[in-house]
Amino acid sequence: MQTWAERAARTMQRLDQLAAIGAGGRRGAHRPGLSAAEQEACELVAGWMSEAGLDAGWDVCGNLYGRLPGADAGAPEVWSGSHLDTVPNGGRFDGALGVLAAVEAIASLRGRGLKATLAAVAFRDEEGWRFGEGCFGSLWVCGRIGPRQLESADDDGVSVSAALSALGYAAPAGGAPLPGAYLEAHIEQGPQLERLGRSNAVVTSIAGMAGFVVEIEGSSGHAGTTPMAGRRDALTAAAELALDLRERCADVEGGVLTIGRIEVLDGASNVIPGRVTLTIDTRAPGGERLDALVAHVREATARVSARGCQVRIDQRWCDQPIPMSGRVAEAVRGAGRRAGIELAELVSGGGHDAGVLAMAGVESGMLFTRSQNGSHNPDELAGEADVAATIDLLAGALAELAGGL
Amino acid sequence: MQTWAERAARTMQRLDQLAAIGAGGRRGAHRPGLSAAEQEACELVAGWMSEAGLDAGWDVCGNLYGRLPGADAGAPEVWSGSHLDTVPNGGRFDGALGVLAAVEAIASLRGRGLKATLAAVAFRDEEGWRFGEGCFGSLWVCGRIGPRQLESADDDGVSVSAALSALGYAAPAGGAPLPGAYLEAHIEQGPQLERLGRSNAVVTSIAGMAGFVVEIEGSSGHAGTTPMAGRRDALTAAAELALDLRERCADVEGGVLTIGRIEVLDGASNVIPGRVTLTIDTRAPGGERLDALVAHVREATARVSARGCQVRIDQRWCDQPIPMSGRVAEAVRGAGRRAGIELAELVSGGGHDAGVLAMAGVESGMLFTRSQNGSHNPDELAGEADVAATIDLLAGALAELAGGL
Repeated sequence: MQTWAERAARTMQRLDQLAAIGAGGRRGAHRPGLSAAEQEACELVAGWMSEAGLDAGWDVCGNLYGRLPGADAGAPEVWSGSHLDTVPNGGRFDGALGVLAAVEAIASLRGRGLKATLAAVAFRDEEGWRFGEGCFGSLWVCGRIGPRQLESADDDGVSVSAALSALGYAAPAGGAPLPGAYLEAHIEQGPQLERLGRSNAVVTSIAGMAGFVVEIEGSSGHAGTTPMAGRRDALTAAAELALDLRERCADVEGGVLTIGRIEVLDGASNVIPGRVTLTIDTRAPGGERLDALVAHVREATARVSARGCQVRIDQRWCDQPIPMSGRVAEAVRGAGRRAGIELAELVSGGGHDAGVLAMAGVESGMLFTRSQNGSHNPDELAGEADVAATIDLLAGALAELAGGL
Repeated sequence: MQTWAERAARTMQRLDQLAAIGAGGRRGAHRPGLSAAEQEACELVAGWMSEAGLDAGWDVCGNLYGRLPGADAGAPEVWSGSHLDTVPNGGRFDGALGVLAAVEAIASLRGRGLKATLAAVAFRDEEGWRFGEGCFGSLWVCGRIGPRQLESADDDGVSVSAALSALGYAAPAGGAPLPGAYLEAHIEQGPQLERLGRSNAVVTSIAGMAGFVVEIEGSSGHAGTTPMAGRRDALTAAAELALDLRERCADVEGGVLTIGRIEVLDGASNVIPGRVTLTIDTRAPGGERLDALVAHVREATARVSARGCQVRIDQRWCDQPIPMSGRVAEAVRGAGRRAGIELAELVSGGGHDAGVLAMAGVESGMLFTRSQNGSHNPDELAGEADVAATIDLLAGALAELAGGL
């Protein structure tokens, strides 16, 4: 019988092992979705699943499962997990903690004779920065991957289809059998648990979010010979858009807006930028506030054309806020009471595979773990004691969801 | 005996041939400095030099020369040319016109028994966007290429040394014997000849210019979970810098300022930009105005740190305005009088190999050709009649400079 502290210590070591994959000497983790580095991470975790006595296996699109068979083979499965891909120069905990904590929590339930089969899951390409859309693996399970997503290409022109194929996977239509419930552990990605002095939180809903790609077309020209007055500089227009958006966003309470990528097409230091593309990511805790942000984005981009530039805006996604399952949340609260861990209640500002499964009708929930320095940051840090609490809470909640305490 | 019109027609066809190299189906020309595409262009032009009866040859760093030997082997050579590399998605005329016009002009002087050896020259990597600094070939000739330049790398991590080596070239210290005079034909790159209704201009000086690379470091974080108030977004800081610089630049008459490249390190749509690098290119017709622009750049970048971001500024170059040789300009004016072509007199806003040679003490001059749509633009366009006038003027001036009319 291993203690939660032993399980947490091993998890911290494994997080370091995963962070070294693909980092190429950089401080942060670098495992793009559907890359060789993500695959290597999944294979390492598959080995740990087997060591823990779970049945490791893969679906056709590369999602990894470590199952603990239940007493009733007909009962809907209960899954817990997250993802193993990262943003560029990302942190050690985002995604990986949820997968490793699920392995430990489910392993701790061996021999308990629970009714439902439990599975620790690693969904592929959750972050989505490589191909422009996240939650690939969970969307595929839910039957929501089609030709549009498969044809999306990364900056090197590699399509999702080609990346899958290179790894020996494919994404046929139709998806896979869904579980009855899903509980995802994840670092909080924000400062609220630190402020509240709590180790963990039950997530009550996932914020609404909308994503856009904006293309601004001006006119290129020689940097030395084109007078300032006659210029149609696409980058200057983009700078004005960025500051306009920041100002507009300030009146939407709890709303956030980020321009995370910008590119000057054929940029050179001595050429006036003729074409710029940028991404806009905006989120809000409620549907009306999300609508307000989307309206701001549309108005601000429309104003760019007043500066002699043409602008095209492509809304890539718009997901309304998603409530988490009351039954799953109650299972987490029960585990907290039994473990003597006082839980906060939070809205998730980030999107997660749990949101995708919830949209497909799976009873889904999330358990947040306190993190220093947020997430998507090489300095993100969950403490070992908080990781132990997370595994403890996860095990308690999964036991209840799988039909036995 | 070929007419100027025949030489211009052939030149136009050859400009189209050069533009197709490396374009990869895009509308504009794409021949990065020290790339296989630039090399292919040089080799094509070497063939045309030989066809024209010139002795084609290369120096150790890959500059191409097509010589017409003079009667006095001891007389300082007279060179005319430009470059064959282009900016990304650039135009057909920038650089290539000067090389091809020199080939035609010098070929037209065969059998005239001129005293000095004439050479049509193609200098390598004039544009400089690939490795961050231009005029590589002419700087090497002048003995101004050292370890710093050779270690500069492009976005793929390829150094100047490695690029040279891949083409079979090298850049040993010491340079090469300099000519006595240099005359470069080039499209104007600005709108003044069109406004004046003239085909050509004598260039009296090259504007002063300064180039910077600025790195802004904020703090990365999750786009969904970091409140707007606590952010240190390096891209927002860059947007403020861009607009601040544009405003400051407005009070410097004739001054221009361009941010031509910007990059978010590890940019992803759902990550707050933690680090941004950008280039600043600024130019002015006089030394005091250039100093004023440089002061504006330093003050504006210093203000970025007030927003919680760290900023580093690296001044890559600062070249004071360079007067062109009076003797070369007078040779061009004389050719204009003989040909009945009325010439404008202009300051060049762009930097050129002629400026590098002038700094090294070579009597250097430039002849501008009217261009629609400036330069560094796939739509730049010099008319065939203006190209004929350019070859005519170049031949007349080179004949005088080489010691015989």
